[in-house]
Amino acid sequence: MRFLGLLVWVLSAGFAVQASVFTQSQLETARELRDAAMQETGAFEIVKDLTTRVGPRMPGSEGDARGVAWAKDALEAMNFDRVWLEPVTFPTWTRGVETARVLGDSSQPLVVTTLGYSPATPAGGIEAQVVMFDNLAALEAASADEVRGKIVFIRNEMERSKDGSTYGPAVSARSMGPVVAAEKGAAAIVIRSISTSEHRFAHTGMVRYNWDGDNNLVPAAALANADANQLERLVNLGEPVYLHLDLQPRYGDMYTSHNVIADIKGSEKPEEVVIISAHLDSWDLSPGVLDDGVGVAIVMETAKRLLGLEERPKRTVRVILFAAEEIGLLGARAYAEKHGEQVAQHFVGSESDFGAGRVYQLNARVQDDAWPVIAAIAEEMKPLGVELGERDARGGPDMLPMRSLGMSVVDLAQDGTYYFDYHHTMNDTLDQVDRTDLNQNVAAWLVFTWLAANSPVDFGSGANLIP
Amino acid sequence: MRFLGLLVWVLSAGFAVQASVFTQSQLETARELRDAAMQETGAFEIVKDLTTRVGPRMPGSEGDARGVAWAKDALEAMNFDRVWLEPVTFPTWTRGVETARVLGDSSQPLVVTTLGYSPATPAGGIEAQVVMFDNLAALEAASADEVRGKIVFIRNEMERSKDGSTYGPAVSARSMGPVVAAEKGAAAIVIRSISTSEHRFAHTGMVRYNWDGDNNLVPAAALANADANQLERLVNLGEPVYLHLDLQPRYGDMYTSHNVIADIKGSEKPEEVVIISAHLDSWDLSPGVLDDGVGVAIVMETAKRLLGLEERPKRTVRVILFAAEEIGLLGARAYAEKHGEQVAQHFVGSESDFGAGRVYQLNARVQDDAWPVIAAIAEEMKPLGVELGERDARGGPDMLPMRSLGMSVVDLAQDGTYYFDYHHTMNDTLDQVDRTDLNQNVAAWLVFTWLAANSPVDFGSGANLIP
Repeated sequence: MRFLGLLVWVLSAGFAVQASVFTQSQLETARELRDAAMQETGAFEIVKDLTTRVGPRMPGSEGDARGVAWAKDALEAMNFDRVWLEPVTFPTWTRGVETARVLGDSSQPLVVTTLGYSPATPAGGIEAQVVMFDNLAALEAASADEVRGKIVFIRNEMERSKDGSTYGPAVSARSMGPVVAAEKGAAAIVIRSISTSEHRFAHTGMVRYNWDGDNNLVPAAALANADANQLERLVNLGEPVYLHLDLQPRYGDMYTSHNVIADIKGSEKPEEVVIISAHLDSWDLSPGVLDDGVGVAIVMETAKRLLGLEERPKRTVRVILFAAEEIGLLGARAYAEKHGEQVAQHFVGSESDFGAGRVYQLNARVQDDAWPVIAAIAEEMKPLGVELGERDARGGPDMLPMRSLGMSVVDLAQDGTYYFDYHHTMNDTLDQVDRTDLNQNVAAWLVFTWLAANSPVDFGSGANLIP
Repeated sequence: MRFLGLLVWVLSAGFAVQASVFTQSQLETARELRDAAMQETGAFEIVKDLTTRVGPRMPGSEGDARGVAWAKDALEAMNFDRVWLEPVTFPTWTRGVETARVLGDSSQPLVVTTLGYSPATPAGGIEAQVVMFDNLAALEAASADEVRGKIVFIRNEMERSKDGSTYGPAVSARSMGPVVAAEKGAAAIVIRSISTSEHRFAHTGMVRYNWDGDNNLVPAAALANADANQLERLVNLGEPVYLHLDLQPRYGDMYTSHNVIADIKGSEKPEEVVIISAHLDSWDLSPGVLDDGVGVAIVMETAKRLLGLEERPKRTVRVILFAAEEIGLLGARAYAEKHGEQVAQHFVGSESDFGAGRVYQLNARVQDDAWPVIAAIAEEMKPLGVELGERDARGGPDMLPMRSLGMSVVDLAQDGTYYFDYHHTMNDTLDQVDRTDLNQNVAAWLVFTWLAANSPVDFGSGANLIP
């Protein structure tokens, strides 16, 4: 029985995959691309150039504009068939003074950073007593009397995980905390950073912000983990703890940034598009290297190497460098608004937006007929340490709007064990990039992009894949 | 021959040490103290209490005063024979705004911190071109024409070392850089942090400052390593790089802090004093945990456990928590000024001021007759992983003034491999303390203090030990 089972497997999966999904020539090209990338790529030089010359690229900032210009120039220098910009418009927000200080007998400064699109405190800051909660649920369960006029402190800790699955449960304190605190009449909120770092950095990130302007939020900031620990110790001494909190961000005018897009026209089905993407914007606290300069570099280097082939892929490969991901996937939403009706022609898409950790798994949201193709692609990634993964995928943050319309997506899932040590902090610098791991990413993206663009089977984008 | 050699060694060193330096009872007490401390001590609770309740203890700050009050209260609660304060007076300096920004096409902020006792830039900051040097020697060799009106940038990197020996060669850029830059007419100086950290923290520390007020310094700041790397990359692009640098520290009035001192009176030779010490002050950027809250905790816990013995040591054990170490060993200088004439009665001294890394070596500056005593003490530290080390020692920074007068000193040399990742940064927080290593320090200090205070042989403090 066992032998028979094995035989069936070899015939149905192994043999079939090897023999029939891709041509020998296609596989050889994939392997050559892969193996050459593992030697060395230009990805590090790309992320170095972007993050050194341009620096931080906060949506709506001068760095945003320079980032778009840099990307347009860099892509135009690369022999794409077409490079163009698509506008993304949003109201801006700029960080200002941000200080926190314990008052009284234990007077001392705490390291904080304002959460994105938080309102300001009154000029000069506020002074109020701290009320500590274990997590968002505990705040939700509290009475308004416990909270009114106070500074809410949510102490919940994010756990470390390889796949980033611990981020979602933790981040609700950041997104919804300022909303719930406002409902209960708090003066402000400080949260422990959504962070796995042992170092004293405060992690920014968005609050839940309604773009129609109808928001009821309190001023909101994140404490570095060390400062959350310190504040917790002070609260646990048993005496009331008062903070001075001064946050002076400013809401600004409307601004138009751009998604930067470049196509390698397919040789047989140019109307069908494989999206490889990253986001060009970053938070203001750092040059945005792991988030997401490396993603930009990975997909640009992937495209560059495909452009260097004598043969074009059958389908169009489209590089999209999205605008304004950090403040709510605004570039991705603009793209979906403009191109959503052509979802069926978006063959598959993926975004690299999880740092420079090695790719370890290939997950895909495709129709059933296409799963053997995914398996065949994963097979070619095996020498990179990549396993075939789950029969579903998110595709990366900026794929979500098109995914919700039914676009097929894949995850080149990365090892994010240390990603949330750096994410949204000023510590997200070039020093944290491992070149070897970065090259491995390029190798995996080359295998995926080349083979997906040459797939003999449709991945199923369209109504049937709507989640 | 080999056996004979071994026999001689056993008789002269091993046997002699075991049998004759200390009494069996003294050794048993040392071992009990040591082994109990390795189980658990109160040291972590001490450093936690100090650094949580008091926070940063910058010389001359309100935290300095609270630190002195905390230490006095804590020592008075511990049953010493005497607790007292000795004044230490100095002019204060307070950090203010500190920002740096690259100007022009690569406009971006850099993380800086003002060096201690640096003068301010003009209000609103300065703008000037950067001129980069490999190290202090290269700056010294430069002509005034190369430097005049510019912002000097010294890029030299500190190497990592276990014993901290790489600090001295690197730190001259910090201490002397602002002096040399001023001599050559520079507008300001920024240095790469004297740091081994891979994280984005700027390390402060003193410039060479003359307390008579006769200083010729330019405004001086340290860049985080990541920012030094970034600035280096920008300079290496080949175009002139301009910085905006705004440093607004203020020189203040004279302030009187205090060394906090406590004696356990010796049972036989109360006039002879074994000093165990640390410094109570810290830089303003952090609660001063590794530098030097842990040192305070180690020597306080050591004393507490000696006070718990039924038997008193023969000599007096004196805990000194020095003031104003960070700005130039001012507490230690005041102590030497007041007590220097009694150097011969200072039997031996040591300071714990190198973080909470494990003690791995016992070095001593003692007269030759006393070396077997040091060897015997080291023998009792062997189970802690401590080896007998060199026949010279520095004793720790605050021992230097008394050492220069001939006081015998020892080093309980610690593993400082990671110390300069945290030193003088805002990242010097309680989160970085390893409790097990901290306990090992207490165990080693107990062995040293108990046995040194009971030594049958004089260590030789006096004119003969003057360096």
